[in-house]
Order: sequence, then C-alpha cells, then structure tokens
Amino acid sequence: MNGLLTDLYQLTMAAGYHLAGKTGDRAVFELFLRRLPPNRNFMVAAGLQQAVDYLLNLSFGEEEVRYLKELQQFARMQESFFDALRRFRFTGDLYAVPEGTPLFPGEPFLTLRAPLMEAQIPETYLLATVGFQSLVATKAARIVEAAAGRSVVEFGTRRAHSPEAGVLAARAAYIGGCIGTSNTLAGFRYGIPVFGTAAHSWVQAFPTETEAFGRLQELLGPGTIYLIDTYDTLEGARNAASLGAPFWGVRLDSGNLAELSRAVRKILDDAGFPEAKIMATGDLNEHKILEFVANGAPIDVFGVGTELVISTDAPNHGAIYKMVEHEAGGERRFTAKFSADKSTLPAAKQVFRYAKRDLVGTADECPPGDCEALLRPVIYGGQLLEPLPPVSEARQHSLASMQRLPKKLRSLFECDPPWAVELSPKLKGLSALVRARVESNGK
Amino acid sequence: MNGLLTDLYQLTMAAGYHLAGKTGDRAVFELFLRRLPPNRNFMVAAGLQQAVDYLLNLSFGEEEVRYLKELQQFARMQESFFDALRRFRFTGDLYAVPEGTPLFPGEPFLTLRAPLMEAQIPETYLLATVGFQSLVATKAARIVEAAAGRSVVEFGTRRAHSPEAGVLAARAAYIGGCIGTSNTLAGFRYGIPVFGTAAHSWVQAFPTETEAFGRLQELLGPGTIYLIDTYDTLEGARNAASLGAPFWGVRLDSGNLAELSRAVRKILDDAGFPEAKIMATGDLNEHKILEFVANGAPIDVFGVGTELVISTDAPNHGAIYKMVEHEAGGERRFTAKFSADKSTLPAAKQVFRYAKRDLVGTADECPPGDCEALLRPVIYGGQLLEPLPPVSEARQHSLASMQRLPKKLRSLFECDPPWAVELSPKLKGLSALVRARVESNGK
Repeated sequence: MNGLLTDLYQLTMAAGYHLAGKTGDRAVFELFLRRLPPNRNFMVAAGLQQAVDYLLNLSFGEEEVRYLKELQQFARMQESFFDALRRFRFTGDLYAVPEGTPLFPGEPFLTLRAPLMEAQIPETYLLATVGFQSLVATKAARIVEAAAGRSVVEFGTRRAHSPEAGVLAARAAYIGGCIGTSNTLAGFRYGIPVFGTAAHSWVQAFPTETEAFGRLQELLGPGTIYLIDTYDTLEGARNAASLGAPFWGVRLDSGNLAELSRAVRKILDDAGFPEAKIMATGDLNEHKILEFVANGAPIDVFGVGTELVISTDAPNHGAIYKMVEHEAGGERRFTAKFSADKSTLPAAKQVFRYAKRDLVGTADECPPGDCEALLRPVIYGGQLLEPLPPVSEARQHSLASMQRLPKKLRSLFECDPPWAVELSPKLKGLSALVRARVESNGK
Repeated sequence: MNGLLTDLYQLTMAAGYHLAGKTGDRAVFELFLRRLPPNRNFMVAAGLQQAVDYLLNLSFGEEEVRYLKELQQFARMQESFFDALRRFRFTGDLYAVPEGTPLFPGEPFLTLRAPLMEAQIPETYLLATVGFQSLVATKAARIVEAAAGRSVVEFGTRRAHSPEAGVLAARAAYIGGCIGTSNTLAGFRYGIPVFGTAAHSWVQAFPTETEAFGRLQELLGPGTIYLIDTYDTLEGARNAASLGAPFWGVRLDSGNLAELSRAVRKILDDAGFPEAKIMATGDLNEHKILEFVANGAPIDVFGVGTELVISTDAPNHGAIYKMVEHEAGGERRFTAKFSADKSTLPAAKQVFRYAKRDLVGTADECPPGDCEALLRPVIYGGQLLEPLPPVSEARQHSLASMQRLPKKLRSLFECDPPWAVELSPKLKGLSALVRARVESNGK
C-alpha cells in the first residue's frame, strides 16, 4: 500500500512531529459519524478488511521518499525523517466493530492506538474506505429491507466512482444483504456469487432477437436470462417463451416495469412456464422496490446499480477521525475539539450494546447488565490477531443484526425517537473536565 | 489490468460469441450521455488516460481463467475459449476527444472499433473511469467558475468513494480547473501541485495552540497555513498573528465563514499582515462560493472536498456504451436500440464543433464551414499512436474551452436554450433506415 495515498498534511504533520521531537508520542484516534446521513436510522459498518490490509502493508518506497524530498514542504527535514519513512510500518493497535454491525452517531467504527505518526497518516485512507463501504452496505440493507424477501443483486460497477470503487461497492452491497454482484473481480477476490448473462449488444449482434436468444440458451442452459426489451418487451417475452425450456427467466430493463412485469408474467404462464422468473433492472431504488412489492408486481429479483453503488440519496458520509487521547513524555491527556458546530468527546471508547439501547463509555469500563462490547481487538502491536471472517460471515452478521433492530428503525425514513445512545457517567465526567481545561486555556 | 474487473455478462457474451462462431465479427461501440445531469449545461470529458492504460494492459492471468472455468456460466465452454482469454489483448482502435473538452448529449467521449469480444469486455471499466472523472471535472469547472478568479484546491480524498477514487478525483478536479489537491499520490503519479499543512490533531498534540502554531512555522516557514478553529477562531487568528512572519496565512474550517473571514481579515490587517491570506474549507460548493464572492467575503482560496469529489448534486452520470455498427461475414450493419425511453442512433460518429453549435455526423463525413472534429485517433491496431498530453495540458484545454463557451452556458443552472447539437442529414437518414429495418422485423 502506497504511503502517499493520503492527504499531504498527514505527512507534513508527521514531519512536524519529527522536527518537534515528538517521535515518542502516542495517540488514540477514533473513526465515527457525528450524525447519520438523511433518512438513515443506522449505518452498517463495512470496509474493515481493507482498513486492515492497508495498515499491515502501508509503506514508503524509495521513489515516493524522493518525491517528498523535492517538495518545498519538506525542505527543512533532515535525512532522519526520510529514514523513518523508509522504515515505516504500523506497530500500533486496531480495535474495530465486526463488519456488518449497525452503528449509530458517536460510536467508533474503529479505534487506532499507535505512535502519533502511525496513527495520523492512515486517517485519509481509513475514512475513504470505511466511509464508502459503510455507505453502500447501509444502502444495500435499506434496499434488501424494501424487497421484503425477494432477492437483490448489485449491478452498479459502471456507475461507481471509478472501477475499483465498483469492486468495493460489490463487496459492501453483499455485506449489506444482496445475494451477489455482476462484478466478476469481486467474485474472484472475495468469493461473492456473481450474476449476469447478456446485454442489449448481444441481441444487436445477431440478425434476429430469436436467434440471439437461442444462442444464449445454448451457452447458459437453465441459467439463461433473456433481456427482452431491446426492441419490444412483450414481443421479446414471446420470443423467449417460443424457445422453450430450459431457461431461468427474463429481464426487463425499461418502460413501466410494474405493468410490463404483469404482462410478461402472463405471457410466460400462458406459454407453460410458471416457474420462469422475472428480473427487473433500470434505475431502481428502495422506494421503487417498496412500491413494486406493495403492489404485488410479479418481479422475483431486483438488479440495482446506480443508486446502490453511489448511495445516491446520501452519497457522502460525514465520518470523521479524531484524536481522543495523546501521550507525551509519559503523561496521558484526553483531547477533544470544541469548535462551534463540530465538537467531539475525549478518551478511547467502547460501545456496549443492550437489547434496546447502546451505552458509550470509556474503553476500560465494564457496565452492568446484559450487553455486548462491540469494539474488538483486531491488530495488536502491528500484528493481526486472527484473520477476519469472510464476507459471507459479515453478511450473515448484518442480516441477523437487522432482524434484531426494532422494525421501525428499519423504515426507509427517519424514525423518531432514534435508537438510544447514552453516554456513561465516566465519559460525561471526563468530557466536562477536558472542556474546563481547554476553556481555562490549558488546552 | 485485471480482465475480471468487468460485469460478468461481458464475459458470458464473449463466451457466447465464441460459441456462436462470431470470433471474426467486429463492432463499433460509443460511450456518450443521453442527457446531462441536473443543472449541467455541459460535461467536461476526463479519464481518457485511464481508459487507454486499461485497454493497453487488459489481460487474463491463469488464476483468473481458472476462476471463470469453475463458474457454471462457462461450463459449456471448451478450452479454445479459455485460450483466447489467456491470449487476450486489445487489437482495436480507440478514438476519443481530448481530456478537458466540454461535451453535450449524444456526443461520444470515445469510440471503440475492434473485434466484438475486445469491444464488449471494456464497457464496464470505461464507463466507470470516464464517467466518474468526467463528473468530477465538470463539478470542478462549475466551482472554479463560481470562484471567479480566486483559487480552488481539491481536498476531498477522505470523502471519495474509496481511496483510489480519491486519486482519480484529484486528477479530474485538476483537469476541471482546480490549482491542485491534497492527495499526495495524485501529486506523485500525475505531477499535480499538492497542498496541505496541518489538521486539528496537530493543534491538539501540543499543550497550547500557540506552541502548535510555532512548531508548524518552524517546519513550513513562509508556506505555513495555521488552522485556527480548533478552540476559537478569532483567538486562533490572534495567536497566529502573534508569531509574526513568515507565514502564508490561515485556514477557517467551521462557523460562519463569511463573518469569520471579515473578522479574521481585520485581526491580520491590524497586526500588520495585510498580505497574509485566508483559506476557507468545510462543506463548500459552487453555490456557497458564489455567495461568498458576491458578498465580497475576504477569502483568497477555497478548499473543496466532499461536494467536489462526489459531485453531490449530480453524483451519477447516465453515460452509456452502445453498439452502433456490427460487421459479420464481411457485411456491415448499423445498429441501434429503440426501447421505449432509451433509444440510440446508429453508426460511428464524429462531433464537429463550430463557434456556436455542434454538428454530429457519421465518422466519415466532412461538413462545410469552420469547425473542428473533436474525436481523434488515440489507439490504432492496439498501438498507442502517441503519448497523451500531461494533465496540465488537459487542464489548460479545459480552462480555454470554458472561456470559449457562452457565459450563460457556464451558469450554475440549466440554460435555455442549451448548446445546439444538430444531426447531419446523413446520420438522420441512416437512423430512419435502421429503424425501418428493425420495425420490419429484419432487426
């Protein structure tokens, strides 16, 4: 992992810490959301695997160091700093919630405890990878909820914000509850089931639609899905049925999908294929799917692209990565930010999940009652404690966690009251102490 | 470039073409927008370099082939198909508009002319990389227009849809007119100017803000930018001024930026630093910047993150990649799609740009009058004709092209009438012929 994939200021700060003799300082940083994106009652954590891969492989090659040496920002730095970059590896600790865990505002997705420079440099990458995948996993959970038991497949790579984002979106969508993806590399890398048969260009590549369908059936047999809207959807359905078994079903990709699905269902049934399935694609989202389901449109599988991989109605997470503890010269200080609209709470935290509420306390608390501590050690002293579970397990965890949330929290709109997140008395007390210190200008 | 980074159906279609004996077929595909995203009067083309890198390096390794062989979709394929994948390389032609060119609906960003399978497989990757970068370059052009001569820097990697998307967003934002980025890897890879000094955690890592500022000044000298809102913005400005020269200026990141910028300007001026600059960051977009500029807020540089790298108000492009010609057994057919709401025009096209309108014709036309043919050959027979220009040149091209557009087209809202895009008589005629053929069921 190229150490330069970060904001320049992470590296100038690393240089500054070096210059200021703070190479022995340690810090704790937490990644969390201040508030939920619109219409969200939870965020499904995802992206931990990529965060771990990054931390374990983060380094600076000689060319990268040479590039930095030529920047005016590092003109005052001596060779010892560049040597520190050449030797850089992450030696700290990572705590994180398992992928697939629903989280609420103020609850850390992950906590880094490391030498100051090692905790600072990863900020940008961690926010981008955890933030993005959590957005998509959350959107997937909404769409899967709306589909009410019908299957949802992720089809969005072409609309993703870069091809690599498409691979990660496929991963996150699977964690959020999709049954699979069209992204072949995501299947190869992560073992996610892959789906897809043919596009309009396939139909166009043959003299007639019927010939195109026949050729597809030769290739895919019982897995054949005919895309029937290249010329005329109903005619396409009749052409598909005329070829007879075996085939899986048909795909609709344009027009009034609710109406067409009924008409196509009738054509398939009348032709003696009541088992043939109907897949619908084309600018779908959780609201449209909810309506199809509510109206009983005979659609068996929804293929969702754009809105899923971009999380179009909430395409940005407000995730932040903030220093909560700082240790210098053997002395530990709790830190927080009290800017007008952007304040944060001090101290490394733990999230305790009870049946109907969460309690956020300090990492060393153990509150009474039947609860689960969500943040678990993942990397200790730079070493991975154990391999992360496969994505299929994260998906199961996400689906099971959704079922445990109250139904109204799974609504597509904001739920009032939201899930209760309380602060422990110790955390509240610490926060007041830090605020008093900052306001008395001790900082 | 991993050949699996595509939708599975591209590969099943490749298999199907093989099975159907169509390995000798050739096709022409075009990548274009059906319509502009909301509030857009143009799209700035970007991402060509990544499209070219992909096409020239696209291949399938042995592990990837083994993965495909185990999928049920390829169960009927013989070894000759997998050998074709192992030998795969792009042998076709690519035509494209230069990066930084503003385009309008129906105008190809790029045209691929290649054996059918070689033209089919790249669809997903090309749409994702050209689509995303064009979105960001377009958003950047809007923001730069709103800034009316003040500088705009891209600061959004942490909000991008994955870290790699952040690198590409930095590239596209620069092409769209930003002066640089915070993304260090984008600086390293593409030679884009990089910016950034310190975050709130820097201030928190020292006992007092003044000490933190002093240490930063030691590191950065005249390039020092103090982030002054960790505790209190005006107090921060006074602390910055108290340290004296040299420093570049200060950064505001929260609160009422218009009011604070005036108060901070006064503090800096009163302290004898009228040359010190003010940078503002924090959820900015083109509309807020337009307002700051209109109200004369003394902000010299805008740092824009989230809204730029996500293109929040229009986070998805409707780019499509469609077959327009197909050649089989020595016979060439023009192809088009006539689905209800998704029709396309047949034949490989050229875009002729006149002073006040565009003419879209077939690729072999040469219309009269003073115009420029925008699509140029880039790859011929699988060979790159010449290296693409550096991003700095694409940026100059974009800035110059913007200046040539009528002012009202550069508005932040939809302009009526839009830029005129006419179709040549030949293209209209061809389209009517193809439609007649399809409707007579010849397809």
